[in-house]
Order: sequence, then structure tokens, then C-alpha cells
Amino acid sequence: MKRTPRTDSSRNMPAKQASRGKQVSSQGMSEGRLRVAIEHVQPEVDGGRYPIKRVLGDTIIVEADLFADGHDMIQGVLRSRHERQDEWVETPLQPVGNDRWRASFDVTELGQYRYGLTGWVDHFATWQRDMHKRLRAHQDVTVELLIGKQLIEQAAAPMSEASRRRLKDLQAALSRAEPNSQALLDLLLEDDTEEIMADCVDHGLGSTYDRELLVVVDRPKARFSAWHEMFPRSTTNTEQPHDTFKDCESRLAYISEMGFDVLYLPPIHPIGDTHRKGRNNSPRGDSTSVGSPWAIGSRDGGHTAIHSDLGSLEDFTQLVSAARSKGIEVALDLAFQCSPDHPYVNEHPEWFKMRPDGTIQFAENPPKQYQDIFPLNFETDAFPRLWEELRAVVQYWIDHGIRIFRVDNPHTKPFPFWKWLIGDVKASYPETIFLSEAFTRPNVMYHLAKIGFTQSYTYFAWRNSKAELIDYFTELTRSSVRDYFRPNLWTNTPDILTEHLQHGGRPVFMARLALAATLGASYGIYGPAFELHENRPQKPGSEEYLDSEKYEVRRWDITRPDSLKEFIGLINRIRRENPALHRDESLQFHPIDNDYLLAYSKQSSDGSNIVLIVVNLSPYHIHSGWLKLDLGALGVQADRSFQVQDLLTHAYYVWQGPRNYVQLDPRSVPAQIFAVRHNLRREEDFDYYL
Amino acid sequence: MKRTPRTDSSRNMPAKQASRGKQVSSQGMSEGRLRVAIEHVQPEVDGGRYPIKRVLGDTIIVEADLFADGHDMIQGVLRSRHERQDEWVETPLQPVGNDRWRASFDVTELGQYRYGLTGWVDHFATWQRDMHKRLRAHQDVTVELLIGKQLIEQAAAPMSEASRRRLKDLQAALSRAEPNSQALLDLLLEDDTEEIMADCVDHGLGSTYDRELLVVVDRPKARFSAWHEMFPRSTTNTEQPHDTFKDCESRLAYISEMGFDVLYLPPIHPIGDTHRKGRNNSPRGDSTSVGSPWAIGSRDGGHTAIHSDLGSLEDFTQLVSAARSKGIEVALDLAFQCSPDHPYVNEHPEWFKMRPDGTIQFAENPPKQYQDIFPLNFETDAFPRLWEELRAVVQYWIDHGIRIFRVDNPHTKPFPFWKWLIGDVKASYPETIFLSEAFTRPNVMYHLAKIGFTQSYTYFAWRNSKAELIDYFTELTRSSVRDYFRPNLWTNTPDILTEHLQHGGRPVFMARLALAATLGASYGIYGPAFELHENRPQKPGSEEYLDSEKYEVRRWDITRPDSLKEFIGLINRIRRENPALHRDESLQFHPIDNDYLLAYSKQSSDGSNIVLIVVNLSPYHIHSGWLKLDLGALGVQADRSFQVQDLLTHAYYVWQGPRNYVQLDPRSVPAQIFAVRHNLRREEDFDYYL
Repeated sequence: MKRTPRTDSSRNMPAKQASRGKQVSSQGMSEGRLRVAIEHVQPEVDGGRYPIKRVLGDTIIVEADLFADGHDMIQGVLRSRHERQDEWVETPLQPVGNDRWRASFDVTELGQYRYGLTGWVDHFATWQRDMHKRLRAHQDVTVELLIGKQLIEQAAAPMSEASRRRLKDLQAALSRAEPNSQALLDLLLEDDTEEIMADCVDHGLGSTYDRELLVVVDRPKARFSAWHEMFPRSTTNTEQPHDTFKDCESRLAYISEMGFDVLYLPPIHPIGDTHRKGRNNSPRGDSTSVGSPWAIGSRDGGHTAIHSDLGSLEDFTQLVSAARSKGIEVALDLAFQCSPDHPYVNEHPEWFKMRPDGTIQFAENPPKQYQDIFPLNFETDAFPRLWEELRAVVQYWIDHGIRIFRVDNPHTKPFPFWKWLIGDVKASYPETIFLSEAFTRPNVMYHLAKIGFTQSYTYFAWRNSKAELIDYFTELTRSSVRDYFRPNLWTNTPDILTEHLQHGGRPVFMARLALAATLGASYGIYGPAFELHENRPQKPGSEEYLDSEKYEVRRWDITRPDSLKEFIGLINRIRRENPALHRDESLQFHPIDNDYLLAYSKQSSDGSNIVLIVVNLSPYHIHSGWLKLDLGALGVQADRSFQVQDLLTHAYYVWQGPRNYVQLDPRSVPAQIFAVRHNLRREEDFDYYL
Repeated sequence: MKRTPRTDSSRNMPAKQASRGKQVSSQGMSEGRLRVAIEHVQPEVDGGRYPIKRVLGDTIIVEADLFADGHDMIQGVLRSRHERQDEWVETPLQPVGNDRWRASFDVTELGQYRYGLTGWVDHFATWQRDMHKRLRAHQDVTVELLIGKQLIEQAAAPMSEASRRRLKDLQAALSRAEPNSQALLDLLLEDDTEEIMADCVDHGLGSTYDRELLVVVDRPKARFSAWHEMFPRSTTNTEQPHDTFKDCESRLAYISEMGFDVLYLPPIHPIGDTHRKGRNNSPRGDSTSVGSPWAIGSRDGGHTAIHSDLGSLEDFTQLVSAARSKGIEVALDLAFQCSPDHPYVNEHPEWFKMRPDGTIQFAENPPKQYQDIFPLNFETDAFPRLWEELRAVVQYWIDHGIRIFRVDNPHTKPFPFWKWLIGDVKASYPETIFLSEAFTRPNVMYHLAKIGFTQSYTYFAWRNSKAELIDYFTELTRSSVRDYFRPNLWTNTPDILTEHLQHGGRPVFMARLALAATLGASYGIYGPAFELHENRPQKPGSEEYLDSEKYEVRRWDITRPDSLKEFIGLINRIRRENPALHRDESLQFHPIDNDYLLAYSKQSSDGSNIVLIVVNLSPYHIHSGWLKLDLGALGVQADRSFQVQDLLTHAYYVWQGPRNYVQLDPRSVPAQIFAVRHNLRREEDFDYYL
């Protein structure tokens, strides 16, 4: 690895070919001799149009095809730098066969890195290779010796000072050596000579890949996180009409015991009165209606104000720091929409769509009408000022200690806005995490991730059969999607009580939790509804909860003996203790001869931690089956027995070979999470055997 | 389809996003409202870095994902223009589901076309769609009617003059209609109104795909051609020491009867004396040695001179025009290398690599040495002058009627040179065809095609087993390779007598010919060696011919009764008569339960011509098997019988269903080429049945 001044990189920039139909101009002079082609760079999203995503400490392995005309040897480097660094770090590419080359770089700072590739013909290495062939064929090499010597005499200035000195010594030694002597030959063929000459490459004749590629480097929580969503106004199991941030503080121990590290709060702002919704989304509330937290804004303020019933700004910052002391980060909701009472409506009517009758356009998805919500009109001529205001909202909460935002319906605001907002925030606060809450068509969900969202909600809640789960998670982890889209698997949300969860009771909640927490390095639950396996829909066929917290204060008895609290706590502990579960790209499904059993494994990047998960997808019946493990992928030798231990029950099995039996009873635990321990020791592994 | 002035296209050009970390600048004004994203454009080579290839008359179907935030309706156009046209042709995109859109354009001129995509939100279409929903839900639409009217009143200026008049009429009619009337509603919902409004889109708020993509349009022969290679000096079966262009002329009837449309001649230039090779590549020839035609250049001239023993320039142009009158085009060899006697060596020593002993570097692939060849040094500082000279060589032969060049070893000259040379020639002579004779690593072969070669030699000669053939031709016709790499399948060349051809006699030549001519829309043979199934290698294990024509004058008795002339003529006639065989992208393999039988089909672009080919890959044994046809792909109804007729033997079969029996005897004909005729007529198809 070596560093070159950033100013040098200009000569590595993409070069245009000589223009067509014209004489070969002096412009084409250097470009005509750029003999190396560079293609098929990986990782690269959509031909290099969007950044890849990684986290701090990752090693980024870059591969590309590099090749030149003819039979000359080539060399290349991977260049990388953090956008704030002045120097490129260059790492030599290593050939991996069939014109494929590979190198890697580590990302050690948050923010954006750039990487690129340059390749060139290495004349001296070619000379050395050919000389060996000539010698083996006993050819006269008199002239070839002169050529080799000439290459060194005419070498370009080396890149490093050390090479400069070594080259000088080498040139002196060459001039002392007898012409056509064994000594001269030996000197020319030395590895040292090759090394010095490799540093004397004129990169001006190097071809540079036509795009600089980008990596967004996030903190590890961007990839590995466990989210708990709760309505702060429904915290206590008391009769008080509206709970507070103070109440939330006393709930932190419970959340921490379950092992969550993100506490996501729905909007905490003043709620509009006009057209306020009543219980169960009834169009008109009464005087006791608390309203939907997503109908943001009243005469008390908008997106930077706090609902007075929740407490003060101080109470909020106190909650944030109390949570932090328990290892929990508070995430806020960015729901860029307004109640009719939001201060923006009077202050900035130009940010809304005015109807010809002088009223402001409310939210609609015809024929559905949401009179309690005014969408912002991003097509307004005044959008630059609107963008700045929304940026200021984010800044306000950043200034009050928030670095995680769950973004409500980002797919209903223009893509360029998010690209700008997220880019601008992360330029100053690269640790910020934006979770995209878009449940829409795949292209739109993926595009939001490409343009900047750190994590994304997924279709997981609606993927319930074995085939559905395998298809979806293969797409997420084996296609190029994995380079930019970080799934966050939610079992449920205040909007989503899937039909699957409505039937099957406690076992189905346990199975879905185990799936979310092990298929996804990031996952979330909406509680306490989830822990208490709340499963009553507003009406049959609906995914809305009955008596939804979105429209009323709810009371939850989190001490109920059938709560899943302990199970969740155990699963989250297993997640923390097993690095295999901290990332998704190693996910591999293993065949098992029962359509209700799903088996998959994950492993840590160094392969030292391997976890095998089997889930019974049926909440009703005991299912058993024969697994057919891909032992090679698990790093297990086929001819030796190995140990698997269920981290949930501590049951311990010794297996051998790929075929192994499993049985799961949904009424006890519908999942097994095995730690796979490599080959068991045998007699010959002990010292006293010999 | 409509035309917009080219100057308008500037506003559709890719726009930069608002810069990060800055205030929303006026620069971001329009871009912030570009709501449509465009992704995954097909066809597109390497993210749009290289052109696709098509031929005159083709319809280019372009697909892309287009989507916007929210639920608004979008529209888009495919723009295309020949590079010499001033106007873009716009074709509306049609949705094909899941955010995918499609449109097509026809290429009616040779040369380069550009294409791109633009998409925008269609507010009026959205209004109409929503109005229908509101009406179905019996909502009050008073205000919505005003909004619809307003959209029309404020419509942007239409693109066309006709729409301008219609919009004016519409606006007048609207102002006459009673407010909140059925008449107003009807007017707003009319299809006509939608059509006018669709033409009033302000493309300034349209997003344009970030690359303009390129199509190189060639003449049909670029895709469909049958090549015959022969050494002009070895034409007659007489005792004269060296045959001439005049002799070639009398050979034209024979080539024409076999049905070839390209006659490729190895280099026709003066041959060097220095280090001239003798028979069977012996290092020193004697006084009778004619030398290798690829050792180009003597005191008589170089790449623009003609070997005096072949005749004069007039004889050559006479041959070219005699061939043309028989439907045969003469292709010349561009072998950019020199014998030591080439005039360039004295005139331009700076184009060669000088060794320290003052000699010129001869060709080498250490330890092999080719003293009769001096390679040109493309790394010379004087390369611009060298490029111009080589361009002048091509121009010289273009001026003498040549439009097809087979390029010798292009992979030993720099890629930028070929990109420039081919681009420059085709800018003025877009009908020119360059065949790349590179037998090297796949990346290099594909790259040469990407940067401009019209056709390419392939690995076909070494793909002989069923699995090899299926793998290779699936790669060539089903991956993105098919958009830029046009295979030309050679059964043999003067350098390549494969071991496969050395054994198995006449049947193996027949099978390989049938494969080449039907797997590839373009193919070639080196004759008369091929017709006469010459199969003696120089030594065991070698692919060189014994007594190779490369180093001596050979005599061939083309009247031999065992010649394949008739068979080749028949195959070429079948090729000409069946449009299915004029292109490769419809190639589909069909399962057959015998590893020696290969079955595949091709069809014409309109599906009216379908050909099914079965080849017995074993030259030794009769093989039979059960075909399992993909009837859907062949357009055959599963429940009706259909007719297949072997175009080689005229044998006629009626088949029904996918499973059908075939049997092939290599000693008679090792291939069957069936014309598949759609469902047979049955009683109910006749008028008198009813």
C-alpha cells in the first residue's frame, strides 16, 4: 500500500479517445497508448451510478477485469480515499485468474469514500518473465541483457523516496557489471529489481476506470440494530389520561432487559384539532379524543415542538440521555406533513396546494380522503425554502441529541429531496441513520435506498411461507441489492397486524420474532402489542389493530405471565453474542425435506462464528425433517463429527455428515438457533495420542 | 411518434442534483422537482459505456423502469435519432407492468443512432383517473371540476401546432360550459382532452436518463453472411507455379454455386524475402519458396501493393466486380505487420522497436521467434503518424471497392487504435464490416467487439460436445453479449484444423458444417480444404495442416465426387430461404435424451418461419432419441398435430405433443433441418365443416 498526492490523481482521470473523423490530434497522444481495459468492477451499483454501503471497520474487496492487448504483463492498483482525505491510498491489485484482479481497502472513518482502479503494462516484469523463458530454451540473450539494462536506465522516476535511492544503487551496480555477464543477468532477475521497477511506473500511461465509485460508511448500528417502537402516551398501566416522557423513562429498564438498542417513538409533536380522528379511526373524534400523532401541528407548534402532555423539551432530552445510559438510542419519526392547525399553514401557505375554492388541498388517495392531514406541496415554486425548513427540523433534533430518524412515507416526497436532505445531513453528521418506511413497489423501495436511506422497511411481514421467505431473502442477500439496501425486518407496526399474526396465537409471534431477529441483522417490533401477542384486527380482513393506539391511549399489562419478554430477551442476547447474526450477506438456506421447516445459516466475516437456524413455520403442528447441510459452506469436514448446541434450550447434539434430523414443537419453542462448533476433537488431536 | 427540434433536447439533458452542504441554490430549482426516476434500461451494454449493434430495418425495443414518488400517473418517451439527424423522434412509452415501460424505434439508416428516455408526472391524466374514482364513490366534485378546468387553462404550450389549435378550441369550450355542469365534466373526461393535454407537458420537469445510449446500425450482411476463404495462388488444379486473380475469377461460379456471399482472401501483397519460410513452416525456405502471405512487404511495396504473381490492380478490381455480379463480396485481410523488406522499415524506422544492437525487434512469443515478421510498435512516440498511415491503407482498399475486412490478430494492437480506426472508417463508410480474428481470452474477444468490431471469430471450432455447445451458445445468445458480439463460426481456418476434424472423416465435416451454418447466422469455411475434408495434421497433436497453403502453393481437385460441395450448397440455400437462420437471438436448445444428439430451434422475428435442427455429434454411430420440444416457444398448440419437414432429405413427419422420436445416421446425413409448420388443418378448419 502506498500513498500518492491527491494532485497526482488528475493524470489518472478518464481520458477521451481521439475524436472520430479527425486527424489523430495531439490530444490523442497519451490516450492512444492506454493499453489496459478495465471492466466489470464489483461492487458497483447500476454501473456506478449509486454508492455502495458499508460500516466502519469493514474491508471492501474490489474486483475487476483488467487486460491489455498482446501478451505483456500488466499491473494495477485500487485507489481509495475518504472524501476529506487529500491523498489516495493505493493497493496493488492481485490476479485471481481469467483476467480478474482483486484488492481491498479498509474503511476506518465515517462518511464517504471514493475508489477507483488504474492499470498499466509492466514492461520490466514482462522482460523478466520472457527472460526466464529464453533461458529455459537456451537462447542467446546478449541483446536481451542490453534491453533489460536499458529499461532500468530509462526507468521513470519512482513513486517513493525509498525506491528512488534503491533505483540509484541499482543503476550504479548495473554500470559496474560486466556486459553480457552472469552477474548482470542475476542482478536483472533479482526480486528486488522487480520491486524497484514496479515502483517506477509512469501512471500517465495507465488506464483509469471511467467512474469513481462511492462507498457510504456508516456506524455499525446501521447494519446491526434491534428496534422497539412504542407510543409514549400509552406507557403506564394506570388510569392517567396521557402518559409522559417521565413514564417512558421508567419503562427503559424493561426495554433494556429485552435487549433492544433503539427506542423509536412515533411523532412527539402537538396534534391538530381540526378533523381530529376518534377511536378506531372514526372520522370525527369527541372531546376525549387524543388524535393521531401523525396529524402534526397545532397552535402550540409544529415539527420542532413537543406535545405538552408528554412533557417539556427538558423531559425529552432527559429521556434521551437516560436511554443512552442504558445502551438505548432514541429514534424520532420524520413525518413531513401537517395538520390543518400547523403553524406552516398560516406562515407558508405557498408550501401547500391551494384549491380553486381557496381551501388547502388535504391528503387523498381517491376516493379516500384524509381531511386531518395537509401534505406539503413539493412541486411549489417555493420549494427551496421548504427544503431548507425541513432540513432545519432535522437539525433541531440533531442538536437535541437525536441521530436516528424513522422516515414516514418517504415514497410520497420527491427522490431529489431525500437525496439532498440525507446527503446534506450526513456530510456534517455521518453517524446519522435514516430508516425508510416505504411499503410500496420494489423499484421505489430500492431507489430510496440507492439515493441515501440507511435502512429500509421490507416485505418481511407478508412473507410467511417457506418459498416466499427463501425467494425474498435470496434477492435481498445474493443480488446487487445487498450492496445498497439494508433490510430492517419488522414483525408488526401500528399499521400492520398481518393476517398471519392474527391466527396461531403465541407460537406464531415467537416464530416470527425468531425469523426477524435471525434473518435480519436489523429488526424491530411494535410493542407492547408484540410482547403481549395482541392480535385482534379492527375488522376481519383488516391489518389495522382493534382499538389502535394510533387513535387512543392504550393500557398494557407488561407483567402478564404469557408475555414474550423473556423469549425476546433471550433472542436478543443470542444476537449480541453471535457476530454471525450481525450481518446478512452470509445468509444461506439449507434444504430440509419439510415445507413447514425453514433452515438457514449465517457466519461471521472471519468464519469463526457459525449459527444455524431452523424455524417451524406452522404454529399448529409439530414438524420434523431431515436437514441436508452444505457442510463446505459451514466449514465443517464431511468425515468428522461436529457439535451443534441450541442456544435457546441448551440442547446439545453431535452430528456427522450433511443429513441430520430436527423436530420442532411450536407449543414449546418453534425455533432452534444452533451454534455450530467445528469438528469435535478426537483422540489424535490430543498430545498424549502420539 | 412525434418530432421535436434537436435544440430542445438541451433541456432534457441530465441535470445535476443540488450540491451537498450548500443552501438550495437556484441551480437546484428545476431539478428538485424532477420526480421520475429511470433505471435498468435495456438494451444497454456495461451501464451504457458501449454501443449495441443492430442492422438496417431492425426494430429496437427499449425497456426501462420509470417511477415517481407518490401515486401520480407518469408518462415518458423514448427519444432516438440518427447522429446526422437534427431532430429527435419521440415515441411514447407504454407500461408493461411493475413500473416497466417499453417503446421501440426502427433504424432505417446505416451509422450510429442515439437513444434516451425522459419521464414526467402527468397531472391531467392523474386528475382524470382520480375523477373517475370520485364519481364512482359519489363524492362532491365541485372543486375538482374547477381544478380540472384550471389545469387546462394553465396548460403549458403544446409541442405540436395541431395541439395548439385544439387546446385553444378546448379552452374556449370550457369557458362556455356552465360551472359545475355535466357538460363541463364530460368535456374534461373526454379522451380527446386527455390527448391534447398529453401534448402540453413541460419537459423541463421531465427527468432524463443520465446516459445517451448508442446503436451502431450495420447492413444486414453484418449479421447474416456465409464466408469462403481461399488462397488465390492455389486456385487451379494445374501445374502453373502460382495462380492469379484471373484464375480466381473462373473459380467464382463454384463459390457461388455453393452459396457463399463473402470471398475472403488472405493478404494479397508482396511477400518478404528475408527469413522467408519454407514448406511446412520450415525456418529457411529455398529458392522455390513462395512464403507466407502474412509476411507482408517487399521492395515491390507494402500494404497497398499487390503481389505481382497474382496480377495487377486492374486484375484485382476486375475480380472484385466479377464477384459482385455473382452476389459475392471480396473481403481483404488487414494484417498490420511487416516483413523485414517492407518499405516502412526504411521509411519509418520510428514505427518499429529498435534493439540496443541497432537491429529491429522481430515478432516473438518467447521462446518462439518469428524473424520474418516485424511487429509495428504502437507504443512509439510517433504513433499518431502510424495510425494515420494504417487508416490510409484501409482507405486505399475502400477506394478500390472493398467494404469487408478480416482483421488479423487485432488483440495484439492497442484497443484505442481499433476504436479510433473503426469509428473513423465507419463515420464515412458505415457499410464497412470488420471481422475480428482474435482467438484469445473471453474478456479480450468481447472487448474488441464492444469497441467496434462488426463480427468476431469464436471458440466454436473447439466446442464439440453437447454440453460445450449448449453452454457456449447460451452465453452468446442469452447474455448481454448478444447485444454487441456477433459470432462468425468458422469450421476451420488455415491455422486451425482441430483434432475433432482430424478424426471421423466426411461425416464430421458435414456435422460441423451443419452446426456452423445453423447455430450461427454468420459462418465461414476455409476451402477447398473443407469441401474436400482435408484432415491431415502436420504432426500428431498439431492443429496445423500438413503441407499448409500458408507456405506453399497447393493443388485441389474440386471435382472429386466425395466433395461436400453439393451438401454445402444445399445448406446455404436452406439458410437463404429461411429467415429464422438469419439471426441468432431466437436460438433455443430443446432437451433430447441422448448426449450425442443436439437439438435447437430458431425463428424469424415475426415467428412465421421456424426451423428445428437436430445434429448427431458422433461421426461413428447411428443415434436416436426422444425430443422434448418447448411447444410454446415454437408457437405450436399442444393439443394439435403439426408438420415437420426435413429440408435436407425432404422427409415429412406429422408430430403431436412435445415428445417426438428422431434418428440420425452419420454415414448418410448427420443433421436434420426441419421446417416446423404450424398446426395442421383439420376438418373444422374447412368451410364445408360448418
